Amino acid sequence: MASVVSKPDPRDAQLGRARVTDTDELRQFYAELGAHNADAFWNRANAIEPWEPQSRYNPTLWKYAEMRELCLRAVELVRPEDAGRRVVTLLNDSDAGRANTAVCGWLFSGLQAMRPGEITPAHKHTASAHRFIMEGGGAYTVVDGHHITLGKNDYVLTPNGCWHDHGVAADGQLSIWQDGLDIPLMNCMESNFYAVYDAPAQTPGFPADDLPLSYGGAMQPDGVEAWARPFSPTMVYRWEQVRDAIWNFAKVSDGSPFDGHIMRYSNPRTGGWALQTMGAHMQMLKGGLHTRAHRHTGNVVYNVAQGRGYSVIGGRRFDWAEHDIFCVPAWAWHEHVNLDASEEAFLFSFNDFPVMEALGVRIEEALEDKDGRQQVQA
Amino acid sequence: MASVVSKPDPRDAQLGRARVTDTDELRQFYAELGAHNADAFWNRANAIEPWEPQSRYNPTLWKYAEMRELCLRAVELVRPEDAGRRVVTLLNDSDAGRANTAVCGWLFSGLQAMRPGEITPAHKHTASAHRFIMEGGGAYTVVDGHHITLGKNDYVLTPNGCWHDHGVAADGQLSIWQDGLDIPLMNCMESNFYAVYDAPAQTPGFPADDLPLSYGGAMQPDGVEAWARPFSPTMVYRWEQVRDAIWNFAKVSDGSPFDGHIMRYSNPRTGGWALQTMGAHMQMLKGGLHTRAHRHTGNVVYNVAQGRGYSVIGGRRFDWAEHDIFCVPAWAWHEHVNLDASEEAFLFSFNDFPVMEALGVRIEEALEDKDGRQQVQA
Amino acid sequence: MASVVSKPDPRDAQLGRARVTDTDELRQFYAELGAHNADAFWNRANAIEPWEPQSRYNPTLWKYAEMRELCLRAVELVRPEDAGRRVVTLLNDSDAGRANTAVCGWLFSGLQAMRPGEITPAHKHTASAHRFIMEGGGAYTVVDGHHITLGKNDYVLTPNGCWHDHGVAADGQLSIWQDGLDIPLMNCMESNFYAVYDAPAQTPGFPADDLPLSYGGAMQPDGVEAWARPFSPTMVYRWEQVRDAIWNFAKVSDGSPFDGHIMRYSNPRTGGWALQTMGAHMQMLKGGLHTRAHRHTGNVVYNVAQGRGYSVIGGRRFDWAEHDIFCVPAWAWHEHVNLDASEEAFLFSFNDFPVMEALGVRIEEALEDKDGRQQVQA
Amino acid sequence: MASVVSKPDPRDAQLGRARVTDTDELRQFYAELGAHNADAFWNRANAIEPWEPQSRYNPTLWKYAEMRELCLRAVELVRPEDAGRRVVTLLNDSDAGRANTAVCGWLFSGLQAMRPGEITPAHKHTASAHRFIMEGGGAYTVVDGHHITLGKNDYVLTPNGCWHDHGVAADGQLSIWQDGLDIPLMNCMESNFYAVYDAPAQTPGFPADDLPLSYGGAMQPDGVEAWARPFSPTMVYRWEQVRDAIWNFAKVSDGSPFDGHIMRYSNPRTGGWALQTMGAHMQMLKGGLHTRAHRHTGNVVYNVAQGRGYSVIGGRRFDWAEHDIFCVPAWAWHEHVNLDASEEAFLFSFNDFPVMEALGVRIEEALEDKDGRQQVQA
Ligand SMILES: [Fe+2]
Ligand SMILES: [Fe+2]
Ligand SMILES: [Fe+2]
Ligand SMILES: [Fe+2]
Ligand SMILES: [Fe+2]
Ligand SMILES: [Fe+2]
Ligand SMILES: [Fe+2]
Ligand SMILES: [Fe+2]
Repeated sequence: MASVVSKPDPRDAQLGRARVTDTDELRQFYAELGAHNADAFWNRANAIEPWEPQSRYNPTLWKYAEMRELCLRAVELVRPEDAGRRVVTLLNDSDAGRANTAVCGWLFSGLQAMRPGEITPAHKHTASAHRFIMEGGGAYTVVDGHHITLGKNDYVLTPNGCWHDHGVAADGQLSIWQDGLDIPLMNCMESNFYAVYDAPAQTPGFPADDLPLSYGGAMQPDGVEAWARPFSPTMVYRWEQVRDAIWNFAKVSDGSPFDGHIMRYSNPRTGGWALQTMGAHMQMLKGGLHTRAHRHTGNVVYNVAQGRGYSVIGGRRFDWAEHDIFCVPAWAWHEHVNLDASEEAFLFSFNDFPVMEALGVRIEEALEDKDGRQQVQA
Repeated sequence: MASVVSKPDPRDAQLGRARVTDTDELRQFYAELGAHNADAFWNRANAIEPWEPQSRYNPTLWKYAEMRELCLRAVELVRPEDAGRRVVTLLNDSDAGRANTAVCGWLFSGLQAMRPGEITPAHKHTASAHRFIMEGGGAYTVVDGHHITLGKNDYVLTPNGCWHDHGVAADGQLSIWQDGLDIPLMNCMESNFYAVYDAPAQTPGFPADDLPLSYGGAMQPDGVEAWARPFSPTMVYRWEQVRDAIWNFAKVSDGSPFDGHIMRYSNPRTGGWALQTMGAHMQMLKGGLHTRAHRHTGNVVYNVAQGRGYSVIGGRRFDWAEHDIFCVPAWAWHEHVNLDASEEAFLFSFNDFPVMEALGVRIEEALEDKDGRQQVQA
Repeated sequence: MASVVSKPDPRDAQLGRARVTDTDELRQFYAELGAHNADAFWNRANAIEPWEPQSRYNPTLWKYAEMRELCLRAVELVRPEDAGRRVVTLLNDSDAGRANTAVCGWLFSGLQAMRPGEITPAHKHTASAHRFIMEGGGAYTVVDGHHITLGKNDYVLTPNGCWHDHGVAADGQLSIWQDGLDIPLMNCMESNFYAVYDAPAQTPGFPADDLPLSYGGAMQPDGVEAWARPFSPTMVYRWEQVRDAIWNFAKVSDGSPFDGHIMRYSNPRTGGWALQTMGAHMQMLKGGLHTRAHRHTGNVVYNVAQGRGYSVIGGRRFDWAEHDIFCVPAWAWHEHVNLDASEEAFLFSFNDFPVMEALGVRIEEALEDKDGRQQVQA
Repeated sequence: MASVVSKPDPRDAQLGRARVTDTDELRQFYAELGAHNADAFWNRANAIEPWEPQSRYNPTLWKYAEMRELCLRAVELVRPEDAGRRVVTLLNDSDAGRANTAVCGWLFSGLQAMRPGEITPAHKHTASAHRFIMEGGGAYTVVDGHHITLGKNDYVLTPNGCWHDHGVAADGQLSIWQDGLDIPLMNCMESNFYAVYDAPAQTPGFPADDLPLSYGGAMQPDGVEAWARPFSPTMVYRWEQVRDAIWNFAKVSDGSPFDGHIMRYSNPRTGGWALQTMGAHMQMLKGGLHTRAHRHTGNVVYNVAQGRGYSVIGGRRFDWAEHDIFCVPAWAWHEHVNLDASEEAFLFSFNDFPVMEALGVRIEEALEDKDGRQQVQA
């Protein structure tokens, strides 16, 4: 939360900002206000109306090599039926991150490892979830009775209010994925509800993968019941299709100066985000690409789907390799670099942009000076 | 147009319908009304307010073997630069079809054959167009500067108000496609505008196929200018992708009792129809399938993409084979049969359903009796 | 319908237009095409793809003094229960108007007079209707069980698919209103369905005027079932409120150069048109106002709510006084003049603009030369 | 924020909830996780995924008699040009309220008193604001150059991103209003931007009250530039119109069992909320009405526009009279009582429902037992 203590800002010495000098009489008045569940606006105004956002979160990087080991330790140490979900939670390196159980902003993220034959018990919540599969084989999720198989680098939804359970088939392999949820947002909005299913796992009520198989490309099924829920019916986006879509896009477009070739996982029924509260992208940085810096409202959590490079975030350099995870807090300058001169790098990311858009505050700024590049801190 | 002469209908003998008997006094009154650009409503009421629609159009079939010969004749007889577009127009077998230059309802269709190196001069119109490629190689269209290559069974748009020209590459093959337009609708709405481009052909301003390559599956390009036009940016839907989408859909769904596995060419930005005034479908009839009959408002023009079978339309049987074209007028009962016991049949079709939906009159009825099958006329 | 015979237009002598010269061989070819339900596109192209719309309708004026007399004659001559609706239908002064039972474009209009105690039997149709009350007292309509009282210059809806009956209370006065419907559109779209209620009149199921009383200004009822139908819940727009709204608007705006101060009857649930297929306006011409001419797609039927003046339509002058009715066909130039130097004139009008918008062809052009005024034909 | 310490809940002793018992080995593991910016999900799961929301805010009441005195004291003690805005801020009686400068949830509220001739300097912010006028005369606001006059019980907007300044005319009277803003939300979303206008006050660029005068009832101006901003063009809703709308509604509806006759201030261009992030209602409790209790997500701040009564919130009784302010936190049971047997009471309120709706979590529950009434704490 915005503290009511603000650092002196020379811009505050002007008409339109609070500039009241304390007096004994005023201090007495403030005490009386406090006794009436009130305060003087001008004591807080400059703090609660900053000139621009100052994030409570810090850019943070999690090395997959380390996090993977911790996940495997968790597999040994606790049973999924005791843990509820045997997840290693990522905490932003900040007081806010630790207090809010947040990876960045009001987003949650964790790494979940499951062995063949294990299941996560079925439940539902108003928090929305999506997952990015990092390794393994035979993993699946069941969402409101729809069984969905999962492969490496697939992106899968378990939307707001849907019953869901996860597992790995008995003949599968140890599987690890990254969860993204809006649990902190739901808590901060005091709208988080939870329920446990009346069985450990759902019995699928539809053919396996019926939803992704019914929504192919820009074709939509007709003559069957129309999808009427406020999230994407596609439910899973396969890596091969995503990668091909980006390759095709890259053949005919220069992409974005800030993000290379970036594509949005979209809801084919609306063209909008797949979920109401979180968005996701896959982006490709061509060999050797160094993007220009920009900053914007909203928080982004990246998972390196492929390649190696670094990002400069708020003036600090963060080097990354496959499946490393890092985040860019709101209004922090950031730019990305693919360190491989010839091979593409792919970054998966998820964000809270749908919330910023719904609130009318999706705001972006390009770094104009220094050729669009930040000065990197020593 | 609905004639003001209606056949006697026993249902009209009731309160709520016009039942006025002529008298000399009334006849005198009617003459006076006529002299004042008026008439008595009750003289026309039962005719202009029928109990249900009675189409002015008839089901009609065009055998591709015959139509193809006529197209090739046209190629020999006229030059495209003289014809404007060297199209053989399909006229519904009805007075309305011949008067309105309509294939069915307010839809236009024609077959266009082009030789390698030929072009159709660039122009635009408020009428929307789409095309289904039946044979050839090297065909292309240019839509508002976007060059689009075309292959067999591809479906391509040239939307309302876009500059467009077509051609076949010099090293291509003689190509034939079916045009669908809403020219009759634009004329009936008195909203048809036309303009000629100031050069025979547009110079493409973008990489070839940039639009279809930028919209892959459910991924949408971000970081580039957002598509803001009221039609699909996909612009062309490739046969292989369409077919795969249907095959996938068929793995997990029983499809529609009336249409087998039918999928809609959709605008990925909205989930709606690709064009504002015309829709299109591809549907698959599994080997031996005989669908149940239904009827609905709106007109449908079919092109047999693959297979052989027949359709029963308004009680008449119409046998079809590859690239035969036939139509189902509004509110006519219809059912489809795949005569091959093991091979799938594919029917491409286009329609005016977006107009029916916009007007709030997309209405459908299933044939309840006779096991959902019509009695076929001898 | 667009005739296939077009007048020679010098603009057609260019690339991009059909310019094929007949030969014996071609005539033989055309005959063969005709035998196959086909024709050569180039024989019809220039006719069916005009450079701009040429309406089949003519501007027409109906003097209320005359039409009122004819309505009263109808009251004497036929009983409403025999006529269905005892309406004097307005026919555009054109072949199309008489053939299509159209006042202009695909719009229907008629004048309906009812005596105290009379009713129009309850029925419904896919055609939408709205009415403008010209004189009387005690008139009402019942729409899907909602009883709505009607006063002079009120505008009332009986939307697509709603059961409706009309009447005048036994202690009321002879009442006359103008009906506007899209019957011709529904017929031309072959989507016109009709049904008779199982009683002569509906028994209201709600308090009188519950719908207009529940939607006041920009306040919307909450805590009750949300309105979910595709038309305005307001159902009736009272003259006093409409007039006050325009007066207020006129205090702070110059209005439109083409229409004075014109306001749209809107659906408060969407901000759009009150009905899906027809729109309506009230406009005020300040004393002495002479608007600039423009033209646009879509058809407009005017009813003079108050005042006297004239309109120039397609170069012809049409003088009007209270409750005269006149129409402006698609793409006809038109301008309006209030002949009273100090008193305002009010014009009610209805149109088919929602259809033009849904089809993507709402197109407008201002008359640039001659000070924005047409040359009036002698 | 949801604390990571949760009280033991017997419902947590089941499959689907975290039930891991600490061991030395696990404690060692948790320490390692902490060193990697991580934690075990199961240590926080039951706390961050509660069975249902538990608000950090308490129901709080501010007596106008007291708050008014404090406002007048502020008028004496500070000059508006020093204070920025001379507002007495209402702080929810909770740690969260004091820390977040929040009246309830992520909503801000304050009382602003201005003397004739005073102004609040012009500025803008991404936070949206609306105001409810409690007393005075001659107050006004200027929003993006539109001058808007304000009367008692009027409701006025200063939306997201609009330049605004306020004042009281030199010949006016001391005026007091309640401000509602989403400052805490904008801060919690790290999307709060602020800017000062380059003059103390805007020079109006339009006739006074041009916006409210252009949007009257369900009529919308046409022929002028269309309103395209994501908030209501009405800008101010006059008390007399609001009251009349409710009176009319009450004539024909029983209203809501939970809220009496409640109407929403709506955006006439969309039918939705007037602002993107906050909604507002006026509701009438008929003489003697005691509503049934319900609870829902979202926070509501009430201002008693007229009358006296009490509300039971979370089992506690809060008595209120004219212009007292009180709040209902998320998911707290609440019911309202009008203590006057014959006179209506009117409650103005504002809320964060638009946010709940945008996030897909507007959830409501009726109190089923005890006749829909809470047991009031002694
Ligand atoms: Fe979950
Ligand atoms: Fe970014
Ligand atoms: Fe064309
Ligand atoms: Fe059909
Ligand atoms: Fe009717
Ligand atoms: Fe006009
Ligand atoms: Fe402000
Ligand atoms: Fe409530």
